[in-house]
Amino acid sequence: MSDYVHPYRDTEFVLGELVELERFCAEAGLQDVNGELVSAILAEAGRLGSEVLAPLNAVGDAQGASLGEQHVEETPGFADAYRQFRESGWTSLTAAEAWGGQNLPNVVGTAVNEIWHSANMAFALCPMLTQGAIEAIAHHGSAELQAAYLPQLVSGEWTGTMNLTEPDAGSDLAAIKTKAVPNGDHYLISGQKIFITWGDHRMTDNVVHLVLARLPDAPAGVKGISLFIVPKYLLDAQGRPGARNDVRCVSLEHKLGIHGSPTCVMSFGDKEGAVGYLVGEPHKGLACMFTMMNHARQSVGLQGLSISERAYQQALQYARERLQGTRKDGSRFPIIEYPDVRRMLLTMKASIEAMRALALVAAAEVDRVAHAQDPTAAARHQGRVDLLTPIVKGWLTEMAQEVTSLGVQIHGGMGFIEETGAARHYRDARILTIYEGTTGIQALDLVGRKILSNKGELLADLLDEIGETVTRLESTGPLVALGLALSDALENGREARRLLLANAEADPALAGSISVNFLMLFGYLCGGWLLARSALRAQALLEAGSGDPQFLEAKLVTARFFGEQLLPRTQALLAAIRAGSGSIMALADEQF
Amino acid sequence: MSDYVHPYRDTEFVLGELVELERFCAEAGLQDVNGELVSAILAEAGRLGSEVLAPLNAVGDAQGASLGEQHVEETPGFADAYRQFRESGWTSLTAAEAWGGQNLPNVVGTAVNEIWHSANMAFALCPMLTQGAIEAIAHHGSAELQAAYLPQLVSGEWTGTMNLTEPDAGSDLAAIKTKAVPNGDHYLISGQKIFITWGDHRMTDNVVHLVLARLPDAPAGVKGISLFIVPKYLLDAQGRPGARNDVRCVSLEHKLGIHGSPTCVMSFGDKEGAVGYLVGEPHKGLACMFTMMNHARQSVGLQGLSISERAYQQALQYARERLQGTRKDGSRFPIIEYPDVRRMLLTMKASIEAMRALALVAAAEVDRVAHAQDPTAAARHQGRVDLLTPIVKGWLTEMAQEVTSLGVQIHGGMGFIEETGAARHYRDARILTIYEGTTGIQALDLVGRKILSNKGELLADLLDEIGETVTRLESTGPLVALGLALSDALENGREARRLLLANAEADPALAGSISVNFLMLFGYLCGGWLLARSALRAQALLEAGSGDPQFLEAKLVTARFFGEQLLPRTQALLAAIRAGSGSIMALADEQF
Repeated sequence: MSDYVHPYRDTEFVLGELVELERFCAEAGLQDVNGELVSAILAEAGRLGSEVLAPLNAVGDAQGASLGEQHVEETPGFADAYRQFRESGWTSLTAAEAWGGQNLPNVVGTAVNEIWHSANMAFALCPMLTQGAIEAIAHHGSAELQAAYLPQLVSGEWTGTMNLTEPDAGSDLAAIKTKAVPNGDHYLISGQKIFITWGDHRMTDNVVHLVLARLPDAPAGVKGISLFIVPKYLLDAQGRPGARNDVRCVSLEHKLGIHGSPTCVMSFGDKEGAVGYLVGEPHKGLACMFTMMNHARQSVGLQGLSISERAYQQALQYARERLQGTRKDGSRFPIIEYPDVRRMLLTMKASIEAMRALALVAAAEVDRVAHAQDPTAAARHQGRVDLLTPIVKGWLTEMAQEVTSLGVQIHGGMGFIEETGAARHYRDARILTIYEGTTGIQALDLVGRKILSNKGELLADLLDEIGETVTRLESTGPLVALGLALSDALENGREARRLLLANAEADPALAGSISVNFLMLFGYLCGGWLLARSALRAQALLEAGSGDPQFLEAKLVTARFFGEQLLPRTQALLAAIRAGSGSIMALADEQF
Repeated sequence: MSDYVHPYRDTEFVLGELVELERFCAEAGLQDVNGELVSAILAEAGRLGSEVLAPLNAVGDAQGASLGEQHVEETPGFADAYRQFRESGWTSLTAAEAWGGQNLPNVVGTAVNEIWHSANMAFALCPMLTQGAIEAIAHHGSAELQAAYLPQLVSGEWTGTMNLTEPDAGSDLAAIKTKAVPNGDHYLISGQKIFITWGDHRMTDNVVHLVLARLPDAPAGVKGISLFIVPKYLLDAQGRPGARNDVRCVSLEHKLGIHGSPTCVMSFGDKEGAVGYLVGEPHKGLACMFTMMNHARQSVGLQGLSISERAYQQALQYARERLQGTRKDGSRFPIIEYPDVRRMLLTMKASIEAMRALALVAAAEVDRVAHAQDPTAAARHQGRVDLLTPIVKGWLTEMAQEVTSLGVQIHGGMGFIEETGAARHYRDARILTIYEGTTGIQALDLVGRKILSNKGELLADLLDEIGETVTRLESTGPLVALGLALSDALENGREARRLLLANAEADPALAGSISVNFLMLFGYLCGGWLLARSALRAQALLEAGSGDPQFLEAKLVTARFFGEQLLPRTQALLAAIRAGSGSIMALADEQF
C-alpha cells in the first residue's frame, strides 16, 4: 500500500503566492488567520488523513457499505474514524460561530477538504454532503429550524444528505414527483429518491435529509419544487432524536467505485408519510438548491484534484521503485528514468498543480464575496465565482479521468490488478464527471447562464486578466516561451467566445454542440494561466533568493511542460468549436 | 441488458470499398472467397456472438474464473459456449489446410474476430492466444512438434498460451530467469510466469504452453532466451494427453476487468521439472515471439475496436430510450436529441469507424505479404504491416479508453451502476493499452524500429499515399472541407517525421519523449485518411445511385465529424512533439 502524504508545499505556495491569503485576511478583518495557523491546520489534517482515513480507503473498497435490517452498515472502521474526525472539530471549520463553527475562510476549508478526499473520498463524501445541508438551512431555514438542526450538523453530531434525483428525474429536475402534503405544522412527504449518497448509516444519532418535493398546488416544472428537512429520527421535546420517521433506505447501489460510500435508494412515506419541514418559501426549492450549488460543484471539482493527487503519489512511488531495464554495467534502473514515464508523471503533476491552483483561487473568490467592502466588489467577485464554478467542476473532474488513467498506465500490468490500488482511484474518479451535474450540464451552465446571459462580460474580464499575465510573461526573460504558449491559448479563448456570442442566437443547437469543448478550452486556459502566474512568482522568489530552490525550479518546469503539452490542446478544442453544430445535428436518429 | 448485433454493414463497406477484398482474392488465386461467402460467414459468426457469447459477458464479469483444487474453474457456461465455438469451426478459420484449417484470408479472420471480442472479450482471449501458439509452432516448430500439436490446436481440441512475463521481467524481457535444462530429447523447465491469460481451464483436454526460458549456456539479455512447448498433459504414444506435466496455476489475479478470463500465475517445475520441447533454435526465442507479435498486437488493437463497438451500441440504445427533458407541449424526449449527447455518440461512432477501417486495412496488408507476386511487393507490404502494427495496437486501444468512457458518461448516473454494464466495458477496456506491450512500448517500436531504422522511408510512403487522398478530396466538391482537414493533419504528420529524423540522433531522450504523442498523431491521421477514403467511395456510390443512401450519407457525416473534431488533435500533438525532451528530462527524481 502506498501511503498518502499531504502535498503541503504546493498548497502553501498557492495560498501564499496566488491567493495571497494573509493579505486577504488582514483586509477582511480576520486577524487571527495567518499562514502559520493555516500551516498548523493543514499539518494536523494531513496527519489524520494519512494515518486514519487513507488506510481505510482500500477497506472501504473491498468491504463497502451493506444494507442491514434497520440501517445501512457502514464499512468497518469508518464509525471510529468519523468519531475522531468529529472530535477534532473538522466538521465545523468554516461554519459560522453562531452555530458553533470556527468561521475560517472557505479557501482554508477547501485546502483541508483536499486532504480528506485524497485520503478517502468515499468517507469524505459524508461531511461534504453535511456541509451542503448546513448551507441550505443556514441560508433558507427558519430561525426555529436553524436552532434545531444547525448546532448538531456543525458539530458533526448528525450528518446531512441531499435528496434530489428520482428514477425519472436526473439532469431534468423538472420531472420530480415526490409529494409533500400539508399536515398541521409540518408536511407529509412521500416518494422515492435515488443516488442518495450516505443516505443512511449508524455513525451518528441522526441523519438530516434535505428533500425536493412538490406541494399539492405546485405548478409544473422546476417552479413547483419545494425544499424540506426530513430527519431520520424526529426530534423530541428536548430536541434530541426520538421516534423514527417514515423514511428508510430500501436498497444500495452496486457501483463501479466509492464502495465505502453507501448510495441509497430512499423511500419516503411508505406508511403514514414522512414528517418534513419546509425550508424557505413554497415552490422556491430549486432556488435554495442553487445557493448551495456553487459550493457543491466546487467541492466535486476538488475531489477531482484530490483523487488525482492520490493517484500521482502512488504512481510516482511505483516509478521510483520498479526496476525494469538494464544499464550497460548490468545494473538495473527504475522506470522513472524512461522519458515516456516521465512524460506521464509530468502530465499528472502539471495537471494537478493547475487543478489545485484553480480550485483554491476559485474558493478564495467565495471569501472575497463574503468579505467584500461594497456591493460592487461583491458583485464582481460573485461574477467570477459564477464563471469559474462550472470550469472547476467540469475541467477538474475530466482531468481526473486522464490523470488516474495515467496512474494505472504507469503501473503496467500491475495497474490492472486490484490489490495494487491504482485501479481503485481510477474507478472512484469515474463518478466525478457525472454527479452534482454531468460535464454536459456544467458546460451548458457555463455557456448559457454564465456567458450568454451577460453577453460574455464576465468572460471578457477574465480574458483581460489573463492578458495581463501574458504581458508580464513577455517581459520576464526566462518565461517568454511560456508567455507565447499562454498568448496562443488566450487567443483561442477569445475566438471561442467570439464564435459563441456571434452565432448562438441564430443557431439554437450551437451552444449545446460546442459547450463541452468550450468548457475544456477554458479549463486548460485557466489552468495554464494560474501555472504561469505561479511561474512568475517562482521566478521572482528564485531571483530574490527566497524559498526552496528545488521546489521553485520544479514549479518553473511544471509550468513550462503545461505550456508545451497541455495548452496546445486549446487549438484542437477551438477547431471543434469552430465547426459548430453542422455535423452534430446532421444525422437522423436511425443513422447513428 | 443491451444486445450486441454485429455492425455488418460497416464491415462489409470496409472490406468491399477500402480493402477491395474480391479483387484481392481473385488476384491471389483465392477464387472460392467472395463477398457473398464472407457475408455468410459474418452473419453466422454474428449469430453465435449475439446469442451465445454476448449473454455470457455479464456472467463472466460477476462470476469470474476461480482456482479449484486441480484446475482453474472457468465461468459457468463458458465450456458449453466453447464447445459450440469449436464445433462450428471458428478456431480453424485462417489456419493452413495442412493442419485442418480453412485457409481464409487474415482480413476475414480479423473481421470475424471483431465479433468475438465485442460479444465477450474475456472468452475470446482464449482462441486468440491459441492462434498465437499455432503461429509460433507453424513458423518455428519442428515437423514432429507441428504434427503433434497443430491439428489439435487448429481444431480447438486444445488451447494455447503465451508465457512471457515474470515478476521482474515485464516490458523488459531481458530480465527473464525461467530455466530450461537439457534432459534427453526434452528439457526440464523451472520458474514462475505471471499474467498468463487462460493459463488453465477445463474447457479442453489439454493446454499447450509456449514458454520463454534460458538454457544453461545462454548469454545474458534478450539474446539468451529460448522458446519451449510445455503441455499441461504430456502426450502418450498415441499422441493423446497422458500424464500430468509439472506445471500448474498457483493463483489467479483479482483484476479490474475481463474477470471471465483467468489470469494465472503459472509455476513450472515445482517437483521434478516441467517437460518442455524446444521450438526453433536455442537462444532465438525472442525472434520466434517477434514473428507472432504483429498478429498479436493487431489482435489487441482489434479488441479496442470491439469493446468500443459494444460500448457504443449500449450507449446508443440508452440515448434513444432514456427520456429526460420536456417539450413545450409537455411530452418528454429522449436524450439523443441533446446536441452534447449527439456529440458524444458521434465521437464514439466516428472513432469506431476509423478504428475498424484501420484494423481491417492493416490486416489485409498481412494477406498481401503472404500472396505477393514477387519479393519486392512482399517487402513493400511487409513494411506497411510493420509500420501500421504499433499504430493499430496503440491508437485503437487508447481510443477505446475514450470511447468506453463516453459510453459510461452517456448513461449519466446509471453508468456508474455495475448492473447497467457500461462500466464493465470501461473496466474491460483498461487492460488493452497495457498487455501485449504498453502504448509506450508500441510507440518506441514505431519511432525506433519502424521509422528511425529505415530513415523514415516506410513512413514517407504512407504520407505520400495520404497525400494522394488529399488530392482526390480537393477535386471532389462536397469533400473539399474534409480535404483541408486531412491536408492540415498530413502536414502535421510530415513535420513530426521531420522533427524526429532531424533531432533523434543528437538527443537520445527525444524519441522516448515524443513517441506516444507521435503514435497518437499518426493514429488520428491514419484514421482520418481511411474515413476520407470511405467518404470518397460513399460520395461516388451516392452519385452512382448505388447502395443504401441512409448508410452512405451517414458515412459522409461521420467522416466530416472526424475531420472537424478529431483530426485537429494532431495540431496539439505536434506542438507537444515540437517541444521535444527539454521539460521532460529537466527534473531530478526528487523534484517530482
